[in-house]
Amino acid sequence: MRSGTNLPRVRDYNQGVVLEAIRVGDGVSRVEIAENTGLTAQTVSNIVRRLLEEELVIEDGVDPSGRKPRVKLRIKPGSRYAIGALIDRDETSLVLMDLDGRIVGRESRTVDQQQGAQGVLDQIAEATKSLVQAAKIDPSRLLGVGLGCPGPMDHDQGILYEPLDLFGWNWHEVALKQDLAGRIGLPVIVDNDATAAAVGERWVGGAQGVRNFAYIFMSIGLGAGIFIENQPYRGDTTNAGELGHMTIDIDGPLCFCGNRGCLETYCSPNRIVNAVRLRLEHGEKSSLTDIPLNRIDLTAVTSAALAGDSLAMEELRYSARMLATGIINMASLLDLKLIVLGGTHMAEAGPIYKEEVEQALNKRLLTRNLQKVCVELSVAGKDAGAVGAAALVMHEIFAPRLAELNVVSQF
Amino acid sequence: MRSGTNLPRVRDYNQGVVLEAIRVGDGVSRVEIAENTGLTAQTVSNIVRRLLEEELVIEDGVDPSGRKPRVKLRIKPGSRYAIGALIDRDETSLVLMDLDGRIVGRESRTVDQQQGAQGVLDQIAEATKSLVQAAKIDPSRLLGVGLGCPGPMDHDQGILYEPLDLFGWNWHEVALKQDLAGRIGLPVIVDNDATAAAVGERWVGGAQGVRNFAYIFMSIGLGAGIFIENQPYRGDTTNAGELGHMTIDIDGPLCFCGNRGCLETYCSPNRIVNAVRLRLEHGEKSSLTDIPLNRIDLTAVTSAALAGDSLAMEELRYSARMLATGIINMASLLDLKLIVLGGTHMAEAGPIYKEEVEQALNKRLLTRNLQKVCVELSVAGKDAGAVGAAALVMHEIFAPRLAELNVVSQF
Repeated sequence: MRSGTNLPRVRDYNQGVVLEAIRVGDGVSRVEIAENTGLTAQTVSNIVRRLLEEELVIEDGVDPSGRKPRVKLRIKPGSRYAIGALIDRDETSLVLMDLDGRIVGRESRTVDQQQGAQGVLDQIAEATKSLVQAAKIDPSRLLGVGLGCPGPMDHDQGILYEPLDLFGWNWHEVALKQDLAGRIGLPVIVDNDATAAAVGERWVGGAQGVRNFAYIFMSIGLGAGIFIENQPYRGDTTNAGELGHMTIDIDGPLCFCGNRGCLETYCSPNRIVNAVRLRLEHGEKSSLTDIPLNRIDLTAVTSAALAGDSLAMEELRYSARMLATGIINMASLLDLKLIVLGGTHMAEAGPIYKEEVEQALNKRLLTRNLQKVCVELSVAGKDAGAVGAAALVMHEIFAPRLAELNVVSQF
Repeated sequence: MRSGTNLPRVRDYNQGVVLEAIRVGDGVSRVEIAENTGLTAQTVSNIVRRLLEEELVIEDGVDPSGRKPRVKLRIKPGSRYAIGALIDRDETSLVLMDLDGRIVGRESRTVDQQQGAQGVLDQIAEATKSLVQAAKIDPSRLLGVGLGCPGPMDHDQGILYEPLDLFGWNWHEVALKQDLAGRIGLPVIVDNDATAAAVGERWVGGAQGVRNFAYIFMSIGLGAGIFIENQPYRGDTTNAGELGHMTIDIDGPLCFCGNRGCLETYCSPNRIVNAVRLRLEHGEKSSLTDIPLNRIDLTAVTSAALAGDSLAMEELRYSARMLATGIINMASLLDLKLIVLGGTHMAEAGPIYKEEVEQALNKRLLTRNLQKVCVELSVAGKDAGAVGAAALVMHEIFAPRLAELNVVSQF
């Protein structure tokens, strides 16, 4: 395994472009790559030779349809791997993913706040080793570990400040990147869970070709991962996308963040479960009455709703309508083409949210007559957070990024 | 005068970078430009020769401080001009601006909805001619006309849809760009008033070196111009920045836009004036009681507030606090470094808003402990809208833009 905390970047912007064309195209010829990218045939040919040498891609079959038969290029299965870990309040979940977005291993471990940050990092380090062993992959092909967690944080330094949605954990300025890299001897990249999920969505085949989109990530907390002009947008302190703490009610209750009437207060899984419990305590009818109150969780509520329970469905729809208001606010500001709904909660209750969000956008968005905003459920399902974290590693190393063009402007 | 509706782009990205360095630096040497931009001395030297030939810059004095005296470069005064016109509900205002951001002429004309779109365009065409004549500039040095107005619109095509803040005008799909270009025989560029103001702010010396900022433009309507990674961000249908129609109260009144509890409802100049009139009708004490109700306008309210009238001040502060809520929502999403307050209303009441917005950001923004968001009043003052519209022309022709690097990515 390689050491150091920083991921090595691919040097060449065009190499990133070609690798992406192969990854997205899945069976494209050199000629098609040149057509799709605007690069010259010679440049494509040179880059492909390098990619073959580095065993990142393979020649896989021949497409006989053209005038000349064309050799098809694909990402080499198992050529490179990354591990992604999502830190949430009750659980860390990890995936081992290859360059092509295939998941070859999964682990999840319950956590509690007693463990503290270092305990959780121990757990992730252990799970990393166990994943590599179980999958029997060549450890030298593991590029690094991506960590997704709620902010605020310093993405560049990999330092987590007091994360709001891990409230009660008393984590304070944890050097996640350095501390985990020290344990596993591999580069580590840390990002906001929602931003990670957005990067992951692109990597495993969702939101393709959409320049501007938002990934609404809903698990314990709520956040948005934003892509602008085909790049993840992180903002000035790398803390963009705090959708959960958008005021949607000026007279609403004070939130623990210091703001008032925050969106999260109205639509979070916590609120849904509490509202259902309260109504059951008051004797309202529901298929959930048979379950002890303290065992009613979000999964139970969602299952009940999807099975026709109207009390459960009402609370989920309320949450969805509130979220829709936040999404409209976001879409009005950013004029987005696509909203992706993902995260553990969305993996279960997504269809309900999709319907409400679509309806609201069609009815209330200012530009509704100019363009329909698409709403899609994340293609990564329950793995969205961990897949996103793994994709951070791949994106960091392989995605073409303008920064490396060394474009300068002081305007 | 040149004909055609599209502005000719400067071909070379680096030429844009060098011109910008000269414009912003105002008296920089070739060596300094090379240092500031990362371009080689040879490249800078070649580009400067071209800029001198095209009479865009001049050699102006010598800086004797270095080991060798260095010739200072400046934008040539009067080298190129643009006209900017802001269309607002009651008035169109125009400026004639040179490449360096100096205003060499101003005109404003009252409009009423009886004129219709074509009548307003006639007016703008007339004012354009009158400005050029009055300033006695060489017409061949006038590059084009920028138009700023409330959206929604198609910026690329220069088509205005039914503008919300010109409500009652019954404008519908007006081909502003084509129709005005036909009248004046000059290229025309059309943009959202707030986006134009943000571009203008950069052009005349505000928000320098700030990668991510928002320009809150408040005149009759309310909108935000957004800069992301040093470029104006327009969104998917070129209608980003509709801050005025962000829901800040889920149970608030239905807005004419179809949404509910829109920010504009709570902070617009209209609301301020109506609230003051209502309170006066109810016999509340104020220095404004001597003025006939129908002559109380925003200027009167603002003057009274600044002169110590507490009723007027209360209503302005209420508006400012509501706006602050919208700005916090925006800053949470976009993690901005700077908020600029501008537009006709802000040119008068700006200091009151600045205070409230600063306070709110310091108290309630999620990342308040990581970075202080700066709040500044627009450097363009009352001219902000028209200056922004003129700057659109300059920006379109001269600003370095990544698009022309022909960077391709289908990721």
